[in-house]
Amino acid sequence: MKLEKEIPYKIYLSEDELPRYWYNVRADMKNKPAPLLNAATGKPMTAEELGQVFCDELVAQELNDTDRDILIPTEIRDFYKMYRPAPLTRAYCLEEKLGTPAKIYYKFEGNNTSGSHKLNSAIAQAYYAKKQGLKGVTTETGAGQWGTALSMACAYLGLDCKVFMVKCSYEQKPFRREVMRTYGASVTPSPSMETAVGRKILAEHPGTSGSLGCAISEAVEVASKDPAYRYVLGSVLNQVGLHQSIIGLEAKAAMDKYGIKPDIIIGCAGGGSNLIGLIAPFMGEKLRGEADYRFIAVEPVTCPSFTRGRFAYDYCDTGAICPLAKMYTLGSSFIPAATHAGGLRFHGMSPVLSQLYHDGLMEAMAVEQTRVFEAAEMFARCEGTLPAPESSHAIYAAMQEALKCKETGEEKVILFGLTGTGYFDMYAYEKFHNGDMVDYAPADEELEAAFARLPKID
Amino acid sequence: MKLEKEIPYKIYLSEDELPRYWYNVRADMKNKPAPLLNAATGKPMTAEELGQVFCDELVAQELNDTDRDILIPTEIRDFYKMYRPAPLTRAYCLEEKLGTPAKIYYKFEGNNTSGSHKLNSAIAQAYYAKKQGLKGVTTETGAGQWGTALSMACAYLGLDCKVFMVKCSYEQKPFRREVMRTYGASVTPSPSMETAVGRKILAEHPGTSGSLGCAISEAVEVASKDPAYRYVLGSVLNQVGLHQSIIGLEAKAAMDKYGIKPDIIIGCAGGGSNLIGLIAPFMGEKLRGEADYRFIAVEPVTCPSFTRGRFAYDYCDTGAICPLAKMYTLGSSFIPAATHAGGLRFHGMSPVLSQLYHDGLMEAMAVEQTRVFEAAEMFARCEGTLPAPESSHAIYAAMQEALKCKETGEEKVILFGLTGTGYFDMYAYEKFHNGDMVDYAPADEELEAAFARLPKID
Repeated sequence: MKLEKEIPYKIYLSEDELPRYWYNVRADMKNKPAPLLNAATGKPMTAEELGQVFCDELVAQELNDTDRDILIPTEIRDFYKMYRPAPLTRAYCLEEKLGTPAKIYYKFEGNNTSGSHKLNSAIAQAYYAKKQGLKGVTTETGAGQWGTALSMACAYLGLDCKVFMVKCSYEQKPFRREVMRTYGASVTPSPSMETAVGRKILAEHPGTSGSLGCAISEAVEVASKDPAYRYVLGSVLNQVGLHQSIIGLEAKAAMDKYGIKPDIIIGCAGGGSNLIGLIAPFMGEKLRGEADYRFIAVEPVTCPSFTRGRFAYDYCDTGAICPLAKMYTLGSSFIPAATHAGGLRFHGMSPVLSQLYHDGLMEAMAVEQTRVFEAAEMFARCEGTLPAPESSHAIYAAMQEALKCKETGEEKVILFGLTGTGYFDMYAYEKFHNGDMVDYAPADEELEAAFARLPKID
Repeated sequence: MKLEKEIPYKIYLSEDELPRYWYNVRADMKNKPAPLLNAATGKPMTAEELGQVFCDELVAQELNDTDRDILIPTEIRDFYKMYRPAPLTRAYCLEEKLGTPAKIYYKFEGNNTSGSHKLNSAIAQAYYAKKQGLKGVTTETGAGQWGTALSMACAYLGLDCKVFMVKCSYEQKPFRREVMRTYGASVTPSPSMETAVGRKILAEHPGTSGSLGCAISEAVEVASKDPAYRYVLGSVLNQVGLHQSIIGLEAKAAMDKYGIKPDIIIGCAGGGSNLIGLIAPFMGEKLRGEADYRFIAVEPVTCPSFTRGRFAYDYCDTGAICPLAKMYTLGSSFIPAATHAGGLRFHGMSPVLSQLYHDGLMEAMAVEQTRVFEAAEMFARCEGTLPAPESSHAIYAAMQEALKCKETGEEKVILFGLTGTGYFDMYAYEKFHNGDMVDYAPADEELEAAFARLPKID
C-alpha cells in the first residue's frame, strides 16, 4: 500500500462544509444552452407554459441562465445532511493494482438507499412541490434509481408519489419496485390502462414491454389532469443539473482542502445529470479562464448520443408530448438495445452538456458493456464497493487514463464520479460471469433512419 | 426538525481516530465464558486442537481471556479505512416522527458492499490466514452477509474463498450468490456431493434444502482435508466478538467527542457478533464499576435463544462435528422457522454474551417479525436507510424504549446498532407489503424435545 500520509482514503467534509448554494454553470457559459421550444408553436417555452407541468420554483430554475449561485433552502440542506457530504475517496488499491503513477479519486454518491446521486435532485423537486402546496408528484423510472430516490424524498415530506415504471423493468426488477413501495410510492407498470396514452399504446401494441418515452408520456398526462400534481424528471433538465452541482462542489471543496487539482474529470453520461453535477464548478473555472481541465463523458456504444448523435432540436420523449430540446440526440424514435446500464439508455443528452460539448469544452467516448463489466469487477475486488453498471463506464475510462500514465510515467490526477451501487444489477453481473453478455452497436443505417425522423427545426 | 446545533446528524471520526486496538471484554469479566470442549474427550480444547481448524493467531485470540487490548495490525487497519470509521447517526427524523423526548442514535455498519458489520471480522480472519501462508479459507453462509464479507476480504488479499451456501438461500437469493462470485469466491449449494458429510445427508434426505449446521459441517470437512486451508466462522466465537469491538469503540469515541452518555444500548442477537461488538467497551465500564448502562439483546420469537433457551454445553453445528460451547441454546437439533431474518436463525448464542446475560448484566427480549417489518418501514421512511430485517429487531426495541420516554417525559439517550442494509431482503418486504407475512413461535413441546437431546455435560 503506497498510502500517502497526508491524503486519507476518504476525505470527508463536515456538515458545516456542506455547500450552501448550488452552482449554476449556465451563468458562466458564453454560449447559453438553447431554450426549450413549444412543439406546437415552435417558440421558446414560457414560464407559464412550463408551470403547467413543473412547479413554479423549478420553472424559475429551469429558465435561469444568469444567476451563478442559487441558495439551497435549509430544509433541503437538512435532508442532504442525512447522507451528505458524500466522501471523496482515493483509490489507493486500484492504483496499486494497475501499477500506475496516476492518482485516482472518486466521488461516491451511492451512500443512500436509492443507491445513486438521484436523491440530490429528488429532494429538491419534492421540496418545491410541497412548498407550492401540491399533493403529489408523478414521474417515470427505467432502471429504478430515480423512482426510488423520488419515493424516499416524498416519504420524508409526506407527498404522494406516483411512479410509472417501464413494464420490462417492473417485471425484471421486482425488488426495485418493492423498495419504492416500502417508501410508500404507488408503482404502475407502463404502458398502463390508467392513461389515455397508455390505453392507446396498449391497443396498438398489446404485447409491448414499454419504454421510457411511453412512461414519461403517462406520468405527464396524469400530472396535467390534476392541478394538485406536477410532473418531475430525474435528468436532462437544467434544474436537475443545478441540483446535482452539489456533487462537484463537494468534490472540489474536498480536493481544495488538500491542495489537489485534478487533471482529468470523468463521468458516465445518459441524460447527463451526474456528469454536469460533477464537472460544474470545474467547468466554471475553465469557462472563466481561471483553470484548465480535461472533461470526459463516457457513454455506452449502444446509445452513443455524443459520439454518434446529432446536435439538433428533438423531443425528450418517444410520445412527442414534451417540449423540444436542443441537444445531442440519436432521435426520439431510436430505441437503444436492452443493455444492462438502464440509466444510460436515453436517446438525448442534457442541453447544457450538449452545448459545452459542441463548443469543444469537453470530450466524449463510447464503451462496450463487456469492457465495462470487466472494469466493474476489478474495481469491486480492489476497492470493495460494488459499482452500478452505469457508474462503471466512468471506472473504465479512469482506468484507461491511468494506464496511459503508466506508459508515460505521468502522475496525473484523475477524478471520476462513482454514481451508484450495483445491488439491483446482479442479474447483469450473472450474465457477465456466465459469459452470456454480448456487445452491440447500432448500424449507421439505424441511426440515419432515426435522424431522418428528427423534427424539422433549427 | 429539532436539530440540536451542537450535535450533527452524523458524527464522523477521522481516520486518525480509528481505534488502534480491539477491546477484549473477557479481560474484564469476573466470570469468564466457559471454554470450548472437545466433544470426544469432554476436555477443554487445546490450542493445538483448535489449530487444526483455525489459524494460529486466531486460536490465540480465541483463548485469550486476559489481555484487554489487542493491537489491530496495520494491514487490517488500512482495510478498515476503506469503509470505516462508520458514522454514528442521530435519528432526528425518527425522534420527531415518534414525538419522543428521547435522543436516539444509531451506529450504521451497512456502508460497505457486504451490507453489514461482518466485514470487520472477515478481513481480520482472512489477514491471519494469509499471514500464516495459507492458500485459502472455507466457510458457510446462510443469509449471505458473512459469505459476501469474506469474499470481499479474500479478493482484497488474494486468498481463495470457498463458500457453502445453504441450498434454499442459494436458490432464493441468486443475487447474493452473484455478489460473492463477483468477488471471486466459489459458491456451492449445501448439502453438496463435494464432501462426505454432504453426500451422506443427500443420501438420507434427497430433497433437503439444507441448513446452516450442514453447511458448517461441509466447510469444516473441506478445510480439515487440506493443510493449506482453514475454516472461518462469522459469529459466536470469542475472536469474532473481539474484532467486532471496533463497532462499540467507534460509537463510544463518537459519543465521548460530544459528551453524550447512552442510557440504553440495544442490538439484535443471532449468534451475537454485532451485539457483543457494540456493547463491549460500555460493558467494560460496567464490569469495572466505572459506569452503568442498560443493555438489551433483541431476538426473533422464532429463535429465542436468550428468552427461552437453556444455558448449557451444546454443539455449534447440527452435524455435531464442532466443539461444544457453553451458551444459551435451543438445542442443536432445533430447526427455527424459515423467517426473513436469516442472520438470526442460529440455535445458540455467543458464550461471552451468554455468560454476561447469565450474570444479570444484560436483558433480552423477543419480537415477532411483522412488528419488526413495521418498524423497518417506518424507519426507512423517516431516516432514509433501508434496514436489514436483522437490524430492524434493534430498531423495534429502540422505538419501544423511545415511546416509553414519551409517556414518562424522560430524555433518555438510546443507542442501537444498525447492522446492515436490506437490499437483498426485498422478497421479505414484498411479503410484508402484501400482507402475506405470518408470525410463529415454537411450542414448548418443540423446545423441550430439543433440550432433551442436549449433550449430557455440565
